[in-house]
Amino acid sequence: MSRSTGFVEIYDSTLRDGAQARGISYSVEDKILIARKLDELGVQYIEGGWPNRTNPGDMEFFVRARNESWKNAKIAAFGSTHRAGASAEQDSNLRFLLDAETEVVTIFGKSWDLHVRDVLKCDLDENLRIIESSVKYLLKHGRRVIYDAEHFFDGCSADPEYALKTIRVAEQAGAEMVVLCDTNGGRLVSEVQRMVEQAKGALSIPFGIHAHNDSGMAVANSIVAVEAGAKQVQGVMNGFGERCGNANLCTIIPTLELKLRRECIGRDRLETLTEVSRFVAELANINHDHRQPYVGESAFAHKGGAHIDAMMKNPHAYEHVDPASVGNARQYLLSQQAGSSAVVHKLERLLPGVDKRDSRVVSLLEKVKRMEFEGYSFEAADASFELLAMRGLKLYTDPFEVVSWRTINRFAANGVADATASGASALESEAIVKVRVRGEIRHTVANGHGPVDALSQALRKALETDFPELADVRLHDYKVRDLSSRAGTAAKVRVLIQSLDHQTGESWGTVGVSENILEASWEALVDSLCYKLMRDRPTRDDGSPLSAGAEPPAPQG
Amino acid sequence: MSRSTGFVEIYDSTLRDGAQARGISYSVEDKILIARKLDELGVQYIEGGWPNRTNPGDMEFFVRARNESWKNAKIAAFGSTHRAGASAEQDSNLRFLLDAETEVVTIFGKSWDLHVRDVLKCDLDENLRIIESSVKYLLKHGRRVIYDAEHFFDGCSADPEYALKTIRVAEQAGAEMVVLCDTNGGRLVSEVQRMVEQAKGALSIPFGIHAHNDSGMAVANSIVAVEAGAKQVQGVMNGFGERCGNANLCTIIPTLELKLRRECIGRDRLETLTEVSRFVAELANINHDHRQPYVGESAFAHKGGAHIDAMMKNPHAYEHVDPASVGNARQYLLSQQAGSSAVVHKLERLLPGVDKRDSRVVSLLEKVKRMEFEGYSFEAADASFELLAMRGLKLYTDPFEVVSWRTINRFAANGVADATASGASALESEAIVKVRVRGEIRHTVANGHGPVDALSQALRKALETDFPELADVRLHDYKVRDLSSRAGTAAKVRVLIQSLDHQTGESWGTVGVSENILEASWEALVDSLCYKLMRDRPTRDDGSPLSAGAEPPAPQG
Repeated sequence: MSRSTGFVEIYDSTLRDGAQARGISYSVEDKILIARKLDELGVQYIEGGWPNRTNPGDMEFFVRARNESWKNAKIAAFGSTHRAGASAEQDSNLRFLLDAETEVVTIFGKSWDLHVRDVLKCDLDENLRIIESSVKYLLKHGRRVIYDAEHFFDGCSADPEYALKTIRVAEQAGAEMVVLCDTNGGRLVSEVQRMVEQAKGALSIPFGIHAHNDSGMAVANSIVAVEAGAKQVQGVMNGFGERCGNANLCTIIPTLELKLRRECIGRDRLETLTEVSRFVAELANINHDHRQPYVGESAFAHKGGAHIDAMMKNPHAYEHVDPASVGNARQYLLSQQAGSSAVVHKLERLLPGVDKRDSRVVSLLEKVKRMEFEGYSFEAADASFELLAMRGLKLYTDPFEVVSWRTINRFAANGVADATASGASALESEAIVKVRVRGEIRHTVANGHGPVDALSQALRKALETDFPELADVRLHDYKVRDLSSRAGTAAKVRVLIQSLDHQTGESWGTVGVSENILEASWEALVDSLCYKLMRDRPTRDDGSPLSAGAEPPAPQG
Repeated sequence: MSRSTGFVEIYDSTLRDGAQARGISYSVEDKILIARKLDELGVQYIEGGWPNRTNPGDMEFFVRARNESWKNAKIAAFGSTHRAGASAEQDSNLRFLLDAETEVVTIFGKSWDLHVRDVLKCDLDENLRIIESSVKYLLKHGRRVIYDAEHFFDGCSADPEYALKTIRVAEQAGAEMVVLCDTNGGRLVSEVQRMVEQAKGALSIPFGIHAHNDSGMAVANSIVAVEAGAKQVQGVMNGFGERCGNANLCTIIPTLELKLRRECIGRDRLETLTEVSRFVAELANINHDHRQPYVGESAFAHKGGAHIDAMMKNPHAYEHVDPASVGNARQYLLSQQAGSSAVVHKLERLLPGVDKRDSRVVSLLEKVKRMEFEGYSFEAADASFELLAMRGLKLYTDPFEVVSWRTINRFAANGVADATASGASALESEAIVKVRVRGEIRHTVANGHGPVDALSQALRKALETDFPELADVRLHDYKVRDLSSRAGTAAKVRVLIQSLDHQTGESWGTVGVSENILEASWEALVDSLCYKLMRDRPTRDDGSPLSAGAEPPAPQG
């Protein structure tokens, strides 16, 4: 790799523009935790919020941020130019920006004549005066000012002369950087390339780019702007944001570092990107997008058999960068198309040094193939695969035995399903479970929201005394697939359960297949709990403990 | 809007490259249903699969596709050039391609020297001969050939002379189109712009683009290729695909139509794009990405207060295109005014000329909104929507009434679940159903492969004497979606049932939502049978028959 070809600043707006996303509302505590992670990641600016009367939480963040020690990032406050028909000195929004007490303030102003006329409802010259006096006011109070030219590209398309005038006014008033915004996210790469050149010609201070993803081009627009000379990229972790989201910094940062060879956070910290990306998704309470470039769980997951064969021959064959460079990992998904090379690879990770000619390994591979033919899919069920392997290689035995179960589900239109139904519900699901633990029978009954939940409740009740750690396990995703029209599987269903250990945050997937949805669910349910027990109390057949951790000794042939 | 500036072909690979996505495995029936939707949408090519020994389902699709009548699309079979060290005549993969009996065959060959040496393991000249003889072989057998230049951009970066030679060979051998592929998805817009020009200089036949999204640039790379002259875009609905996915046709198509003014599916059909996008996600059993450009639920959802204020003043303020142009709707998240224009659109199709001010229509719209909030989705459940509308407008009444149902499911490890269990099975599902038909109670019991099948059998048994036509209905797909991570729906599941009339070949979808999987299934099950009864014996409230067919008279206000 050649050396860096220049520096690009990362301006993170996860806590401000990113918080405009549907379904996201960060607490002040969330914001502090995220800001610390971003600081460790090495971004240059963290936009903390828009402090004003209607966002008290944002002001509280700035107060708390003052007492934190930031290693890499500057905290920036965000707000708008002052209102039309008033002066900067009278404007409460600008006062709030000063109250945030940040070294850097970012204000946005209007570049698009449509917005000046229809939204600000003032004339074009007044908007220029507003930009000038807002920037000057903040400078007078000792702030560094970044000027966000809202709707720059739409403005530049409608009335280029006026749009360019607005950013020249910001420069002349003393802004240190002008950021060109595709606020509506509708601009194409070719338009951004052209208009960035126009802006460059009009400015003598550095410029940045702020793009939205409404045309699916936020990342590309950011990158072409950098190629044209932009010194700052504004964006959001995971691309969260209003509508279709903001430019995704988790895609832009590695592209800058690895492909354009522009330094922004540095190669070492780049290796923590996947972790930070997933951390932000957790705090946002949004599922991490497994298809996300670079940092997604599937970003380096190979499924097609031909692809996997080629990857074994040369890892560059179907990977654009080394997954380790962003802290991600290669995966070979187990699927019908994948043949058995993926299974061997997975087994090798589970049991390093395993002997592939060992008869137990051979028969395990055959079993996996047979199960896949029957409709099992282990690509989202790593835990079931691990259990299958450990049971097959006699490295683990389930500490309980299922004797019987049944579920009864009643519905009555008159509102009383059964005397035992709770409340006025017309519907009741009940499960009865009998298991044998250490030679003793546990016989329990429970209700649930549906038969699977009832089975889960009754099974936990049967095991809770012997294995209190099972209380930590939550079933947090349940999927059913109909396999009836799939060759070789008559009228079968496949159930996938995703479980979460709410103490450790670890999650795992288990699978069950049957003609009967309840039997398939039961199978995935039992594996879910067995996996927790195996992780916590590994034992051999003879009852002696296994060496702890993910790497038990390899069986010898 | 100015007039079209030229035509661009859409080549859809949802069923082939899109099926490489993690978690996707379509049944043959799914593939037929999706292909029909794509044909209605107006794409020019539907790539049906890769017919070979390891994909029997793909060959079955091609057999079934022959008996369908396609209005707009040509079905294409996909495969590779023949193996190194063999001749085209001996190659089983090419034979399978002919067996698919499609007018168009797409084959991919190697452009990247690394792949020729390390994956094909042959010399560079032999690869050229392989490309030539594979294309010629298919032409000799009367096929039109599209040549996919796999890894073209990586090859063009490593050894441009050789990469260009490979595509010239394909042209000289008789391919009608060369498609430049960014197979690893790692290329930047600026690189694609440069290398497309190189390819253009080397070819005299039209070229296309096939991009993957590993750098988040698949859409932008496709669009810049079209701006540089590409006549075909290959992609996948919703961007599904291996790793980070393929170029998203749901973003590319509207960008071509609305922004580049290139005709591909036409403005009228563009208005069905949102519906088709959601339909494909439903059949893939993958949550529809709400942030997806143009077609996502949040794509035109405004949350920021300032944005909403501005939108009220001028709808162009924060929208890059009119949401109706792609069949989507504007939403204001703060005011909770979710747009119902999609429903109005659907209702208008069902009852042309319906009066939107009719109080029954107004209350129907409110009901649909409430149900969607609760987790219902009618995208793949037209029959449930039609029943809801017809019941709500008092144009249809169910000819039976559910009194009660129950299911009992028993499992025993010793192999005898219950004295009544048939044979040696350890598992038994039994359902008891009580319905009222024409004032009389029908009380039945039946076994089934699982509780849903048992309920279905018992319900049919209860209705078969009165409605013998129900014997024609098969439940041929059953899907369950967990809604627990969706805001506003705690621990709910959505069940989708696809039914087929095996006399007429007609199929329809129904939906149920509940915390209890059996209740949700029952709801979809009842709708499935009611739809058949409504189609065959339409009646008004007063018992008089409705006019037959899909267009009953519009209610008068």
